[in-house]
This record gives sequence, structure tokens and C-alpha cells, in this order.
Amino acid sequence: MEDLYLVSLAASVIALIFVLIQSKKVLAFSEGNELMQKISKAIRTGAAAFLKRQYKTVSIFFLCLFVVLCVMAMFDLLTWYVPFAFISGGFFSGLSGYIGMSIATRANARTAAAAQEGLNRGLRIAFSAGTVMGFTVVGLGLLDISLWYGIMKLVFNESLETITSAIITFGMGASSMALFARVGGGIFTKGADVGADLVGKVEAGIPEDDPRNPATIADNVGDNVGDVAGMGADLYESYVGSIVSTCALGVLAFNKIPAVDRVYAVAIPLIIASIGVLFSIVGTFLVKTKENASQKYLLGALRRGTNFSAIAIAVISFFVVWLLLGIEFYGIWLAIIAGLFAGVMIGLCTEYFTSDTYKPTKKLAKSSETGSATIIINGIGLGMLSTILPVVIVGIAILVAYLCSTIGYAGNTELGLYGIALAAVGMLSTLGITLSTDAYGPVADNAGGIAQMANLPAEVRERTDALDSLGNTTAATGKGFAIGSAALTALALIANFVEKMDANGGEYVLSLMDPRVLVGILIGACLPFIFSALTMNAVGRAAQSVVVEVRRQFSKITGLMEGKSDADYAKCVDICSKASLKEMVIPTLLAIASPIVVGLVLGGSGVIGLLCGSLVSGFILAIFMANSGGAWDNAKKYIEAGNYGGKGSDQHKAAVVGDTVGDPFKDTAGPSINILIKLLSMVSIVFSGLFAKFSIF
Amino acid sequence: MEDLYLVSLAASVIALIFVLIQSKKVLAFSEGNELMQKISKAIRTGAAAFLKRQYKTVSIFFLCLFVVLCVMAMFDLLTWYVPFAFISGGFFSGLSGYIGMSIATRANARTAAAAQEGLNRGLRIAFSAGTVMGFTVVGLGLLDISLWYGIMKLVFNESLETITSAIITFGMGASSMALFARVGGGIFTKGADVGADLVGKVEAGIPEDDPRNPATIADNVGDNVGDVAGMGADLYESYVGSIVSTCALGVLAFNKIPAVDRVYAVAIPLIIASIGVLFSIVGTFLVKTKENASQKYLLGALRRGTNFSAIAIAVISFFVVWLLLGIEFYGIWLAIIAGLFAGVMIGLCTEYFTSDTYKPTKKLAKSSETGSATIIINGIGLGMLSTILPVVIVGIAILVAYLCSTIGYAGNTELGLYGIALAAVGMLSTLGITLSTDAYGPVADNAGGIAQMANLPAEVRERTDALDSLGNTTAATGKGFAIGSAALTALALIANFVEKMDANGGEYVLSLMDPRVLVGILIGACLPFIFSALTMNAVGRAAQSVVVEVRRQFSKITGLMEGKSDADYAKCVDICSKASLKEMVIPTLLAIASPIVVGLVLGGSGVIGLLCGSLVSGFILAIFMANSGGAWDNAKKYIEAGNYGGKGSDQHKAAVVGDTVGDPFKDTAGPSINILIKLLSMVSIVFSGLFAKFSIF
Repeated sequence: MEDLYLVSLAASVIALIFVLIQSKKVLAFSEGNELMQKISKAIRTGAAAFLKRQYKTVSIFFLCLFVVLCVMAMFDLLTWYVPFAFISGGFFSGLSGYIGMSIATRANARTAAAAQEGLNRGLRIAFSAGTVMGFTVVGLGLLDISLWYGIMKLVFNESLETITSAIITFGMGASSMALFARVGGGIFTKGADVGADLVGKVEAGIPEDDPRNPATIADNVGDNVGDVAGMGADLYESYVGSIVSTCALGVLAFNKIPAVDRVYAVAIPLIIASIGVLFSIVGTFLVKTKENASQKYLLGALRRGTNFSAIAIAVISFFVVWLLLGIEFYGIWLAIIAGLFAGVMIGLCTEYFTSDTYKPTKKLAKSSETGSATIIINGIGLGMLSTILPVVIVGIAILVAYLCSTIGYAGNTELGLYGIALAAVGMLSTLGITLSTDAYGPVADNAGGIAQMANLPAEVRERTDALDSLGNTTAATGKGFAIGSAALTALALIANFVEKMDANGGEYVLSLMDPRVLVGILIGACLPFIFSALTMNAVGRAAQSVVVEVRRQFSKITGLMEGKSDADYAKCVDICSKASLKEMVIPTLLAIASPIVVGLVLGGSGVIGLLCGSLVSGFILAIFMANSGGAWDNAKKYIEAGNYGGKGSDQHKAAVVGDTVGDPFKDTAGPSINILIKLLSMVSIVFSGLFAKFSIF
Repeated sequence: MEDLYLVSLAASVIALIFVLIQSKKVLAFSEGNELMQKISKAIRTGAAAFLKRQYKTVSIFFLCLFVVLCVMAMFDLLTWYVPFAFISGGFFSGLSGYIGMSIATRANARTAAAAQEGLNRGLRIAFSAGTVMGFTVVGLGLLDISLWYGIMKLVFNESLETITSAIITFGMGASSMALFARVGGGIFTKGADVGADLVGKVEAGIPEDDPRNPATIADNVGDNVGDVAGMGADLYESYVGSIVSTCALGVLAFNKIPAVDRVYAVAIPLIIASIGVLFSIVGTFLVKTKENASQKYLLGALRRGTNFSAIAIAVISFFVVWLLLGIEFYGIWLAIIAGLFAGVMIGLCTEYFTSDTYKPTKKLAKSSETGSATIIINGIGLGMLSTILPVVIVGIAILVAYLCSTIGYAGNTELGLYGIALAAVGMLSTLGITLSTDAYGPVADNAGGIAQMANLPAEVRERTDALDSLGNTTAATGKGFAIGSAALTALALIANFVEKMDANGGEYVLSLMDPRVLVGILIGACLPFIFSALTMNAVGRAAQSVVVEVRRQFSKITGLMEGKSDADYAKCVDICSKASLKEMVIPTLLAIASPIVVGLVLGGSGVIGLLCGSLVSGFILAIFMANSGGAWDNAKKYIEAGNYGGKGSDQHKAAVVGDTVGDPFKDTAGPSINILIKLLSMVSIVFSGLFAKFSIF
């Protein structure tokens, strides 16, 4: 029964075949008229230019770290698997983003074209493009894990301990890549957005999305590289991180329970993820709607798919636990359910605080009546207040997962932490379909832009708008899963770090009354603040570079303003990505250097403190920033819909200020923090051998 | 040698005599012309009206909690000293604020009148009024501690353990009162400020500080109740909290070192505080300047006094430690120095990030060129970035204090924590004079307002402006001490809570890998965010009540707009205080209820987590909010001084939005967080008996 990894290999192959089928389905549709094709091609070229530049920068980074890891391996500070695991994690994370973005940039015009024929057709294409992203992430994630598992087992005949502790380190590669993709993408999209507006709308006086503005395409590219490629790499990292940290804890927990073969504990997260893939695929077939259905009905169509998958996984996983571990471990099944449930609840909270169908955002929109200062104060207040429910929900999930999974085995801390880790796996088990419903949003968004630019009939725009606005709601749910699973996975990773310190013979304490732990917590809690400050300031500077380039093109390219010659979109995109990737260096170095420095000075105790501190403050800050930003965005849309003065009123101007402040909150800093807190743990795990041997205190 | 408390009693008497002398000196000066007297009286009456209302509300709260504590004492969950200690702490904290405010509201017109004759005379009066506040706080603080110590020793012949563990609980009274004063004052001052501007300037079109505006006096009252009374109660709580927590830890630490009588360990913080009082008094005599000196010279005059006191205390405390404990405990002296030094360094950081003589605030002012959204984003970025240095400084202070004080006694955790607590005492030992230089600011500010309203010559206003702008710089230093000492004292209080759990036979763990601890940290870290959100929203609502009342008076009082009849200032102040005190209820209940609820559910382990979480996130959030707010304020002033377009430009309008957002940041939410994190610990200590006996997990 050592070959259970074959199940996950099979699931990954099925997922990737499904991706192929869906891609072909999308590509078979017409791209619409010539103008639509031209616009879509410009976006696609821009996206390719960005990825080219991004992978160049990232490769240098990966190469440097690869060398460092090899040197460490030479000195026996880690195994020789680690440098290669690191590279493979980064590669697959990047590949997930790349594939997802490739299809998204090909589906946008097709969705617009299909929406000409009806709502259901539009939904099917946009959603199919979303499924490509969703199942690429889970397929490649399981593929990477299964291949490593298989090769280490069959070729090198390694023990379970060695396998799981090597696999966990490719999380560091995945997280590093994800951080680049998310932060780079976030700076890109918001820099292009703000920059395009400043020169185009304010200086040149041309409308938004006007093809003469060289930064317009960069703006649309930004939506793809931020919301699609960035999110893909991000969730690849979350998905893989949750599984590998659970596998590693499973070995530790069941070391103390000789009655059960540890291989089953390692298999559980893989099997649950595999089942998740299969039922997610089934779920996608439930997503369809009548032509011209209401928005509520549309949401119902998407929800039907995700709910079916979630319930199916909840039921089947009971039997998985029963068959593999035995009925007395039913508490572990409860841990999985706690995770699934917590993810859904956090998503509902996000929706409540950020959707304009509920009181908080309506009240926020009203506060625009007394000017931009009050809408800013109230938006910050709203975001801060919205943190308590997710904190309580995750708190309850942690307690339930821990206590249930240790039923009958009180005192087996590792078993409790294994339960917490499994809660994250449970939360992400439906990722195939939840990510599909999430990634379809930007496709619909882009389709709307293309419909506008190509002067398609108003009803087409109405249909893409219906699809797009739905995307905002599903994105809120997606954020709940991303943030909640980040907290649980980070916790599991911290537990793995503690174990690594043990394995390396390092000394450390876990006590809150130890000064090194306390100082570590303080520094750790500070990191998400510093990180957010750096990325927000970077957005401002990136916008400046865009302004300079657009001004240059306006003055140098003859006939551009008359529409007689094309703008150099690729140049603008290149500058934008150059700026954003340059700005990425310091935040990423901060994430990698800080645990190493703290580890060398304060030892393992300081690092544990640092990881806990950053987990806690990062979790809260991420929710605060995401919800403030989301609420400002929707408050603006609510006013634009004709409330409190409507478009062009003073209230609207105040709301625009709120939305602009919220942009880097919700699209740059906020989502990157999820990755940051896991990357810190991953780096600590990889460098644990160093801290165990060398540290000042 | 059990009578060392007589030293602190003597020091407190000296401080209070000095207060009397300084008060007489201030009151001997002329209040200026009739108009100045009238304005000053209106402010004074308003302040009295506020205190009347405030003490009414607070009394009900104290009475309820007194009954609760008595019931707990009946069930042996705490000693009978606690309810009375609680009341006395609250009483003296309130009294400190009351006395300080009484003299401040009497010194404002006198400072304006004296400034007619010259800068030095103005400085002397304003500073003398500041010393009344400064030495009232330290005098009453030491008096309260000495009296309790003396009575428990002489009358009840209690042991050192019982004495120190009873004394620590009056910190809960002081902290509760301080929270009311700070948050109530903060909501009052910002509510009045915003409200007065909205109706007066915007609707009625009368200038700022116009006596016809009924809320103008409330605005000036607000400066006194927020910046004087609130700060007084706040720092009384900090001062007393740092001393009592150190005394209690001293007993524990030296239980393990039989060679030294524990009474000396208890005496050290009291003696150092006493020496601090004496040298602070000496320092005040060094604060004088030539007539019409430059601002730099003025700052030098204030710095001379504080620097002298700090150096003198640093030197003398070495001999104190030597004489009382022996030369081998020189590490404890180093801990005190670490605290003193850290306080100064944090103050310098605050100054760097918020003063317009340095790059950060200048750059922030420049970002107003692209509108209010960018100045908001950059201000938030600046504040977040500014947290790292104070975190590192406090981190180093914690490590140094812990490691130095345990030299030769490695493994004596309590001794290390005693060292950390002493670092806070060291930081606050110069409070007499630092608070004087801090509290003089609002007096100079009010004097400037009176000079303006009474049409005094321009040179008078220039002089009060010079004094006022200096106050901003000294306030930055004061904030450093308040925030830094809050972190160290809170840590000492957590250590005391842990010990209380032991003493009560409660079970708990300190490990970061325990789910109860982790959930506690999560909830604790969330509290400062919730607290800030509640207080910021309260400011908005308070401003609304002011608007309604001012509109009513404008329409109902005939002849008001023509200047023929007086506005009902007291009514406006009353409404303002009613609103602010009503708004105070939920935040205070949150602070008191949350550790109790968490304790009953998650036990002592959860509470320890909660306290550490709130300490860490509160410390960082307080610095972030204070520095963002300070930088926005000074960026606006920098633009008003003629940079980037100057007054009335678009840049100035953007900067005003920044300043308005910053107001509740820096004057309401930020400073209250310091008290919050200590109050949480105090409540936990008082209720520890409950958690030890009853808790679900």
C-alpha cells in the first residue's frame, strides 16, 4: 500500500486532460470581428511581454538561491533534494500562472463574441477559461507532489520521513514564485491603472479604455497578470503548501501511534485532494444557466457546482478516513469538515462587509456625503471591524480541528497539528471548482472592455456586466478560502519548522515568557506592515514610470492621437513590468532575509516567535486591507448606480478617492500577505539546519 | 529596612509641594484684558462641565465593578484589598487629570498676557503650568503606592507578597480611568473640532475660533480634556503601572536568591522613581531662555532640563543598585539604562518620521501634488514603515534588559522579567520633567488661540506660535516614552498574570504550539484593530451631535450671530461630553470583557496568548497610527508655510484631507491603544482567580 501516490498521480492526469479538453473547447469558438481580435491580440502580446520580463528576473533570483542551497547541501545543512525541489516548486507555480493567463487572454474576445448570442454561451466560455486555470493549478500541484514521491520512493528508495521533508521544501520555490507573481502583478496592474488614468484621462482628455492610450493595454494586461497569473501562482502555492505540510505532520503524528501505518496518514491529504479534483470536475458540469437568466439565477448556477463538490467531498472523506485510519479516527474527519465550513463562513463574512447589498458598504457610500476624509476614515474603520469574525471563525476551526483529531490521543500535539493542517486541505479540496468560478471573473471583465472598445451592441455589454459583477461575489468567496487556508497552512508549517529544529538537534523554546520568542513575535508582527508599506509605495512609483512613457509616446509617435498609427503597447507593458519587478526585489528579499537574520541572531526560538507574529498580524492585516478595499470599490459602484448623487457628484468624487486608496490595499498589499506568511515559514524550514548550528543567543 | 517606602512618600510630598509652589507662581500672573479673561473663563467652565459629566458616568462604572470585585472577594477569588485598591487607583488617576487641567485652563490667558512682554516670560508660565501636571502625576502616583504600602505594612502587618500583589491591582482602576479619560477626551476633542468646522466654517461662513460659534469653546475645551486631562490620567496609569508591576516581579525574582532581602528588590523601583522626582525638579530650573531666542534655542532650553535629569538618574541609579542589591547585580542597572536609552531613541524616531524638517514628511507633503488619494496612501505607507525602528529598539531593550539582569543567574526567568519591568521604570523615571515639557504644549496652543481671538499684536501670536510649534516636537518625544513604556510594562504585567495563575493553582501552558494559546494570540491581536475601529467611528458620530446642537443655537438664540448675546457654550460642551462618554462604553466594555470571556473559555493559556497578541499588535498599530497622523498634520503645516502651492491651493486641500483622516488616528485611537494593552493585563490579573477555577478548555 505504499503506492497510494498513484491515486494522486491519476487524479492529476485526469485534471490535466480536463484542462486540455476545456482549452480546446474555448479555442474552438470565434474571436469575433477584426477589431476585437486586434484588441485581444494586443492584450495577449502585452501579457507575453510581461511574463518574458518576469521570468528573466525571477530566474536570476532562483539561480542565486539554488547556488546557496547547493552550498548548504555541501555542508550537510540540508539534503541534496532540496535545491531541486525548490526549483521544481517555482517552475510549476510559474507554469500554473502562465497556462491560466494564456487561456484567459485568448478567451476574453471569445466571451464577448459569444455574449452576442446569449448569456449562457458567454458564461460557458468564460467559465471554461476559468476551469483551465482552476484545474491547471490542482493538476500541476498533484503532479509535482506525486512525481517527487514516486521518484524518491522508486528510484532512491527513501524513507517516508525523507520524502515528506524533501517535498515540503518545494513549497519554498512555489511561495517565492507566487510572491513575485502576486506582488509583481499587483504593482503592475495598479501602476498601469493609475498611470493610464493620470495621463490619458487627466492630461490628454481621452476616455478610459481608448486604444490610443498606450497604457490602456497595459491596464488590461494588468488585470490578467494580477488577477489571473498572480492568483494562479498564489493558489498553486496555497494548494501545494497545505498538502505537503500535512503529509509531513502525518508522519510525525503517527510515529507515536504504531497501530497505524504512517503511509496512510501521508496518503489522506493526497487522496482527499484527488477526490476533490474528481468531484470538482463533476461540479463544473452543473454550471449552466438559461439564456438571459437573472443575476441571482447566475449565482445559483455557480453555487450549485461548488456546493455539490463540497458536499460530495465532505461525505466521501469520511469513508477515506475510515478505510485508511479506522473508525476511531473519526475526529480527523471532523477536522476536515471544520476547515471546509470555516472557508465558506469567511467567504460569507467577506461578502457581508464588502457587497453593496448589505448595510456596511451602503453606510460607507453614505459617508461620502461629508467628503473624502470621512469615507476614508469609515472605510478603514469598516475594514478593521471586519477582522473579528474571520478571526473567531479561524480560531474555532483551529480549536475544533485540534481537539477533534486528538480524541482518544490527548497529548499527541503533532496529531492535533495534523488535524489543523488537514482542515486547510479540506478548505482547499474544492479548489478546482472554486478557483474556476474565481478566475472566470477577470475573463468576463476583459470581455466587457473589449465589447466596449469594439462598439458591440449595448445588450452584449449588459450580459458581460452581469457575468462580471457575479465575478466580484465569487472573488469574495475565493478570498475567504485563500486567507483562511493561509492561516491554517502557516500554522502547520510552523509546526514543521519546530520538528525540523528537533531533527537538526537545534535548541529552542516555545514559551511566551522567553525574551527571544517575544522579540521574534514583535518583529514578525511588524513584517506584514513593512511589507504592505513597501508594496503600496511601489505602486506609486510604478505609476510615475507609466506617466513618463505615455507622455513620451504622445509626443514622439506621429499620428497616434489621430488614430492613424498604433501606440507601442509592448513598450509600455515592458516598462511597467520592469518597474514592477524592480520594485519587487526589496519586499521579496525582506521575506527571505528576515527569518534568516532573526534565526542567526535569536536562534530557533526567535524564528518561531517571528513566524507566529507574522501569521497573526498578517492574517488580520490581510483581511483588513482586502475588506476596506473591497468596500470602497463597491461603495463607488453603488454611487455610480445612481445612489447618493450618482456619477459625477461630489459624493462620487469622494468615493473615487476611497477606491483609489483601496486599490493597492486590496490588489497589491492584501493578497500578497497570504503568501508572505507562508514563505517566511518555508524559508525557516529550509534554513533550519543553519539556525540549529549557528546562532548568537 | 522595611521602611524604604518612606523615601517614596517623602519624594511624593516634595513633588506635591513643588506643584503647590508652581501653581501659586502661575496664578500670580495677570490674566490680561477683560476679553482674554472672558474667553479663558468660557474654556474653564466648559472643561468643568465636561469633567462633571465624565465623573458621573465613570462613577457608575466604578461602582458596578466595585460590587463585582466585592462579590469575588466574598467567594475568595481575590483579597478584600482589591476592590478598594481598584477605587483608589481610579480616583488618583482622575485627580491627576483634573488638577493638570485646572491649572492648564487657568494658565492659557496668562501665557498669552505674559507673551506680550517677551518670549521667556511666556515660556516660564506655560512651562510652569506643564510642571504642575507633570509633578501632580508623579507625586500622586508615588503617594498612592506609598500609602498603600505603609498602611498594609503598619496597620495590617501583611507580607511583601500580599502587599505587592494588592498594589498591582490598583493599576486596574488607574487604567480604567485612563481609558475613559483618553478615549472620552479623544472623541470629545476631535468630535468638537470636526463639528465646529462643519457648521461654523462651511455652513455659517464665520472664521475659525470665532466666539459666536458655540462649538468653538468646545473645540478649545477639547484640547484641554484630550491633550491635558486625558494625557495626565494616561501617564499616571503608565507611571504607576510600571512601578507596581516591577515591585511584584521583584518579590518573585528574589524568592530564588535568598542572599538578598526581597524588600530591596521592591524598593529599587520606588527609590529610582523618587530620585527621578528630585532630579526632575532640579531639571525644571534649567529651563529658561533669553528673550526672543530662536526656536532652536528654545528647544535647547527644554532639552537641557530633560537631559540633565536623565543623566543624573542614570548615574545615581548605579549607586542605588549597588547599595541595595550589591555590585554583582550591576546588570540590573544596565537594564534601567537600556530603558532610558530606548525611550530617547523611540522619541527620535517619532521625530524623524513626523517632523517636517526631515525627508519623510517633506515627501509626504510633495505627494499632495497628485491629490488626496496619493497623500493618504503615502501617509499610511509612511506610518507602517515607521514601525520597524521602534520595534527593533524595544526588541533590543527587552533582550538587553533580560540578559543583563540575569548575569550570574541564568535561568531565573523572573529576574529577567524584573529587569524588563525596571527598564520601563527607567524610561519613566524622568516623567516629572518630560511630562512637563509635553503638557506645556496645549497651554501654549490655547494661549495662541486666545491671543488671536483677543486681537493681541502680531508679535504675541508669533511668540506663542514659537512656543506651540516646540510643543509638537516635545510631544513626539513624549509619545516615544508612552508607547515604549507601555510595551515593557504590559510585558511585566503578563509575567505577573502568569505568576497569579500559579498562585491560584490554575493550569496553563505557555507554548506557542498549544491551540488555546494560538487562538488567544489571534483574538488578542485583533482587539486593537476593533478598538481603533470603534473609537474612530465614534468620532464621526460625536461630530454629528455637535452639528445638530450648533445649528439649533444659531436658529434659536436671537442676536447670537450679531455678537449681541452669548452662545450657550456649556450646553455644547455638555452635549459633546455626553456623546463622547456614551461612545466610550462599548470600547471600554470590550477591553474588560474580552479577557474575562477568553479566560472562561480558553483558560489561563488563552489569556496569556490574548495578552501577548494584543501587546504586539497594539504596540505596532499605536506607532503606525500616531506617526501617520503626525506626519499628515505636519505635512499640512509645511504646505501652509508656503511650500508646494501654500494655503488654499489644491495641494493644501489634499493635505487637509490627510490631516482630517489623521486626527482620529493620532488623537483618539492611537494613544488609547497604549492604555488598552495594559488594561487587558490588569483585568486578567484581577480575574485570574476566576480563570484558575472555571474554564471550559
